[in-house]
Amino acid sequence: MDLCKRALPVRGKYKDLAEKKCYRMAGHNGACSEFHYIEDLKKNHPRVANKIIRDATKTTGAAWKSSDAGPNRIDRWVMLQSDEVLASYGLDMKALKPSVVAKLREKAATYEDCMEVAGKLTWLAYQMPNAPTCPQSKREYLEARFGKMAAGSTTCIVCKEPLNFALFEKAQRGKAEIETAHGNPRQHNEENVGFAHRECNIAQGNRTLEEFYQWAEGILNRAYRK
Amino acid sequence: MDLCKRALPVRGKYKDLAEKKCYRMAGHNGACSEFHYIEDLKKNHPRVANKIIRDATKTTGAAWKSSDAGPNRIDRWVMLQSDEVLASYGLDMKALKPSVVAKLREKAATYEDCMEVAGKLTWLAYQMPNAPTCPQSKREYLEARFGKMAAGSTTCIVCKEPLNFALFEKAQRGKAEIETAHGNPRQHNEENVGFAHRECNIAQGNRTLEEFYQWAEGILNRAYRK
Repeated sequence: MDLCKRALPVRGKYKDLAEKKCYRMAGHNGACSEFHYIEDLKKNHPRVANKIIRDATKTTGAAWKSSDAGPNRIDRWVMLQSDEVLASYGLDMKALKPSVVAKLREKAATYEDCMEVAGKLTWLAYQMPNAPTCPQSKREYLEARFGKMAAGSTTCIVCKEPLNFALFEKAQRGKAEIETAHGNPRQHNEENVGFAHRECNIAQGNRTLEEFYQWAEGILNRAYRK
Repeated sequence: MDLCKRALPVRGKYKDLAEKKCYRMAGHNGACSEFHYIEDLKKNHPRVANKIIRDATKTTGAAWKSSDAGPNRIDRWVMLQSDEVLASYGLDMKALKPSVVAKLREKAATYEDCMEVAGKLTWLAYQMPNAPTCPQSKREYLEARFGKMAAGSTTCIVCKEPLNFALFEKAQRGKAEIETAHGNPRQHNEENVGFAHRECNIAQGNRTLEEFYQWAEGILNRAYRK
């Protein structure tokens, strides 16, 4: 499917570092829009829609507030820039702890990849058990970009069990029970992204899924050998 | 082995809530002491000895500082007391978030269990690959309480791989790479406690080891069935 891709006005501190685009179909009617396909979700499940956009486009927020915790939720594409460029925007990477810098740099992704991820996550969310119905026009758009949709088919990328849409609204100790997850935690792109149970995502940790499964296999071999 | 168990003076805010005891052998020479067996470790590896005592006797510290984060590292046996008793000590459990209360209450354990845990952890630490040599008298004491020691035999309770003593000194993002771990996270006693890799402990989460292994088994079945 061809997308409109007309340039949209960019605002904010880092506006020179990205070109925002219209992600509606080429030749669409009405105003250009980056996130047209998620508008219904935004109206009826704003928490879910905002989470998808935030996770797709921003680095993780610091879990604590302190001067060396680093910037809280910055555009992922900003993290592709060199220390020198970032310094010219008033962001002194050298003042941050190396561990914080590493964490931020790991989240770096191009604007285009972030947009693909947002679309893919929306497509996945609508295919969860108990998900709201996707309006026909949005469904056609998402299917043209990501393939046929099947109700209730979205599973946790780690444990492969169905992921209930209702878990988006459930939170334990302040943390949502569904998290955006990556088959390889260091690659933020469409093929590599999905949703996972919070517990599963935590268990996977910094490993790729392949590494995680091998680790689990080794554990079970040793635990049951004993 | 009979222990001295003479009562020792107790200090601090909650001193009426525990009777500290001497854990040297019955009929020992010299002064009574709670943690006589860990003194050599304390001299040569103070970080390890302090961690063992802290993990054995205290609740987890809050990862953040805030008024509703709850008390930071309180004696585990204090958490056995009712809200009413704690209120009389100036600790208002009802003012804390239910999730914080649950976390604190989960860590509750008797003074006796905490003392058993401290001994067991010391016994395990001395049996790690690369551990310092345990002085003969301390070794006899620990073996009389917990059984024969075998150099290099201590493994991670989760993944069953050997746990190198040197990992105690290694920290990533401020977190030690070895953690005190529980086969059942809600039971703090000698049979149930051990050490684990930080990653393994995180992966286990709030599950018992049995639940964790079953979960991993289910994941592997589903992941490789696909």
